[in-house]
Amino acid sequence: MHRHIEDELTRLKDQILAMGGHVELAVEAATQALITRNSKLLKQVHDLEDKINREHMEVDNSCVQLLARQSPLAADLRLVIAVLKISTDLERMGDQAVNIAHNTREYLEGAPVKELIDLPVMANEVRGMVRDSLDAFVHQSRELAEKVLARDDIVDSFKHKIFQELIGYMSQNSTQIEQALDLILIARNLERLGDHATNIAEDVIFAITGNDIRHGGGQHE
Amino acid sequence: MHRHIEDELTRLKDQILAMGGHVELAVEAATQALITRNSKLLKQVHDLEDKINREHMEVDNSCVQLLARQSPLAADLRLVIAVLKISTDLERMGDQAVNIAHNTREYLEGAPVKELIDLPVMANEVRGMVRDSLDAFVHQSRELAEKVLARDDIVDSFKHKIFQELIGYMSQNSTQIEQALDLILIARNLERLGDHATNIAEDVIFAITGNDIRHGGGQHE
Repeated sequence: MHRHIEDELTRLKDQILAMGGHVELAVEAATQALITRNSKLLKQVHDLEDKINREHMEVDNSCVQLLARQSPLAADLRLVIAVLKISTDLERMGDQAVNIAHNTREYLEGAPVKELIDLPVMANEVRGMVRDSLDAFVHQSRELAEKVLARDDIVDSFKHKIFQELIGYMSQNSTQIEQALDLILIARNLERLGDHATNIAEDVIFAITGNDIRHGGGQHE
Repeated sequence: MHRHIEDELTRLKDQILAMGGHVELAVEAATQALITRNSKLLKQVHDLEDKINREHMEVDNSCVQLLARQSPLAADLRLVIAVLKISTDLERMGDQAVNIAHNTREYLEGAPVKELIDLPVMANEVRGMVRDSLDAFVHQSRELAEKVLARDDIVDSFKHKIFQELIGYMSQNSTQIEQALDLILIARNLERLGDHATNIAEDVIFAITGNDIRHGGGQHE
């Protein structure tokens, strides 16, 4: 029995890793389509989202089966709960990649806003957070998870700066309001991707330590 | 033992209902602040979010304890999994109410955009979806849950219409771009609230039937 549950937990981890890999690819394809003005990449995002959605159901199903068959306790139970939550976050990250793809398609139909401002840098920072949150999960590393949490403020300040610049741009260029709005919504989606990476990092810490650090809970340890 | 798990499940349901009630109040306060231009209501939103965040941790904790102590099976296990997911959705709905409050505060600082367009009607529709998704959970009603799912398209089309009208408005009124953008972001947050109500309805159907209807899964029954 003990051996068996270890195998099932390893399989769950592998499922999350595969799913996370697809999320990374979807975010990469959506943001590269924007940066290189290559709308052909957008189809990949939709194909990856289909895959991610299927994986979401498979992971949930594996968790339910594992809970029913193994009745895991303590750290094992926490890991299964964390996997359920991480899988939900990854699925919503797939949705965000699709939102970015949607806004990018609209954006690429018109003339470019003079510069993409800090969007490529922000996208890079967010992709780093996503990758590191998954690495923190694989290695069950509290240290790496905490580094992800610390980066959320950087992403928020990018978003704030991009918003301000684009609002200024819109007031000067009334014929390009839709284009600038597309970029604002993309910055917003990137911010949300960062939020999801943060959620994953929090779940990793919960799985490792049993501490619920969300909502400042860690301060009451 | 059987009696005991029933009691714990009833308590879990009560926790979700209390949390859901606070989410409804938060959405109500945020949208009423916008509609009646009463920024005093915004503090309530933040107080309610604090409460919702605490309840989120309490519900998760109750679920972990119940899984560890009772090792529930079949419908009971599905209910606990659904509660874990619903609690996560409710917590994010609290965040959305705070986002609306934030954009409303900014919006109320300036001159009003001539009309709020369909935002009050959209807000009303979304509040109805939230309430009905919680009712579907209390009564474990598949019928009501399916009605919630059907309403998601209505909310999406409201958002689309509001976006188009506000983009037109911005191109005519370059001094009020920030105000109009606040309303666009509020419409976006309302749309997300509707998405979360949809997630809850899907979780209710999963808890009742064991069918995972997400991502078109229901078509393969």
